[in-house]
Amino acid sequence: MEFLTNEKLTIVGAAGMIGSNMAQTAAMMRLTPNICLYDPFEPALEGVAEELRHCAFEQVNITWTTDIREALTGAAYVVSSGGAARKAGMTREDLLKGNTQIAKELGENIRTYCPDVKHVVVIFNPADITGLVTLIHAGIEPSRISTLAALDSTRLRSELAKYFRISADEITNCRTYGGHGEQMAVFASTTLVAGRPLSELIGTKMPVEDWHALQQRVVQGGKHIIDLRGRSSFQSPAYLSICMIAAAMGGKPFTYPAGVFIHNDEYQHILMAMESEITADGVHYKDVHGTAEEHALLTESYKHLCTLRDEVIAMGVIPPVAEWKKLNPHLE
Amino acid sequence: MEFLTNEKLTIVGAAGMIGSNMAQTAAMMRLTPNICLYDPFEPALEGVAEELRHCAFEQVNITWTTDIREALTGAAYVVSSGGAARKAGMTREDLLKGNTQIAKELGENIRTYCPDVKHVVVIFNPADITGLVTLIHAGIEPSRISTLAALDSTRLRSELAKYFRISADEITNCRTYGGHGEQMAVFASTTLVAGRPLSELIGTKMPVEDWHALQQRVVQGGKHIIDLRGRSSFQSPAYLSICMIAAAMGGKPFTYPAGVFIHNDEYQHILMAMESEITADGVHYKDVHGTAEEHALLTESYKHLCTLRDEVIAMGVIPPVAEWKKLNPHLE
Repeated sequence: MEFLTNEKLTIVGAAGMIGSNMAQTAAMMRLTPNICLYDPFEPALEGVAEELRHCAFEQVNITWTTDIREALTGAAYVVSSGGAARKAGMTREDLLKGNTQIAKELGENIRTYCPDVKHVVVIFNPADITGLVTLIHAGIEPSRISTLAALDSTRLRSELAKYFRISADEITNCRTYGGHGEQMAVFASTTLVAGRPLSELIGTKMPVEDWHALQQRVVQGGKHIIDLRGRSSFQSPAYLSICMIAAAMGGKPFTYPAGVFIHNDEYQHILMAMESEITADGVHYKDVHGTAEEHALLTESYKHLCTLRDEVIAMGVIPPVAEWKKLNPHLE
Repeated sequence: MEFLTNEKLTIVGAAGMIGSNMAQTAAMMRLTPNICLYDPFEPALEGVAEELRHCAFEQVNITWTTDIREALTGAAYVVSSGGAARKAGMTREDLLKGNTQIAKELGENIRTYCPDVKHVVVIFNPADITGLVTLIHAGIEPSRISTLAALDSTRLRSELAKYFRISADEITNCRTYGGHGEQMAVFASTTLVAGRPLSELIGTKMPVEDWHALQQRVVQGGKHIIDLRGRSSFQSPAYLSICMIAAAMGGKPFTYPAGVFIHNDEYQHILMAMESEITADGVHYKDVHGTAEEHALLTESYKHLCTLRDEVIAMGVIPPVAEWKKLNPHLE
């Protein structure tokens, strides 16, 4: 009954469908005996804690609090699903402002209560942006924060498996980079289908129009779940984000793309899905391999994220890029 | 990446909150690479299957079907959460008739499509009765079917841990037997609280009225979750029932009470929570140890279940006891 670590894992947004699944998943994967559930919504949070106690996980101590100070103090690992959902009448900008404000507060609370946190996984949308906002305000090294991006890649894997009628395990190295949703850059050249590069199959075994339709299904993957289940996906984001934090705890390395802060010759002052690895040393990105066309797509996705970032600067949620260093000395 | 077995596990009712959690739990616990999801509600079922594929569990093949023949053919293990929920205006009798009818069909389908099933776990309420109805119609040995009863015991454990402000791991051998809910028989003499029998603490460290209030909280544990979360518990029943089927697959033995068919000098022709163990040999009951008072409570619970059973006989869902043998030669 070993655990990966004995350090405190705090789940922010634990009263929700994603957060409560994260807590169960973390307990089942035996990440740590020390799981703290945080949410501002007290009755539902207590209900989740009760349910998990009724599971009778051995040696797992599940605590809950609506006090963020108590939740984050001593936390070595944090996973946050704690954003707001888009409500009727809300514009995209309203949601962006609301969730980036929540991310700002999360960052400030991390800075205040757990500045030595080892890893933070942020998953509320738009995660590339909320992760960036959290990073700036938390003042921690970029390697200590990652965002959920893998779902796009696993959806691509699932769609390819269905299309070619083979096991998903025969589809390897599926990658989408950059932003999430409409703006993701789907890479065909990295993917192997039963050992053959997907890019060789497109136009031969798979008509180009089928590939375009498949990409569209990947982009609409989240919407498709809502259409089918009548609710947003919660099992897959919860499971994958717990796999990410498990990797940061020294468990199995996480090798699907993660959102990671990047600032180099090609992309500046941004957080987005890259070829990356999460290990006990945190998240680190690597070079992205692809065709010129794929790189162009990634650049387009990057530019879209820059626009979003600049909107959030204009909203005053984060300062202009040149002033980031004042809040976070680790950002160039 | 070993599995407990390679045999087919079918989850009946997989589109619901409990069933979809069961599927995720089974995949995470690596019970088998062969998980089939069944539910009559196609869109939601497909949505669950999609979500689970997006988790990208390695080497796990998740299939789904709305055809019970396809779902059960070749199934070595079956877990069913597939009952109906009580709806507004429905009487207790309506629910009993509806769910026992579903149990009858499940049993008949097992008899037709997977008579060699190794273990079946039934969890839809009233589980002692739906499990009994399934057993009679399936025609299988009683050791091959168990029902979820452990939640009452784990709720008792959780309440005692909160009351004594100690870790739940220090509360051992918590037991409730007989029926579920109002009619359960809570045993104090078997439970150890940090090594001391609970029955010694009642009236000394714990006033009798506190014990009665605590028992009441255990009985109302399910209602309490609804009050707090605004929905019925689903994580704990899903997790515990998958632990039961894991034990039947040869995993860690399941030692919380399970609902098991019993026919001996004391209790006749009934299925109820007993001191029991689930292993690769199926479910088997043992003697219940307790005080005379506790045994009297269990007898009362047993009598209540007999009344329910007789109601179901009167409804025509199962034949009179003397005719059970015609449907299931393993029942005396």
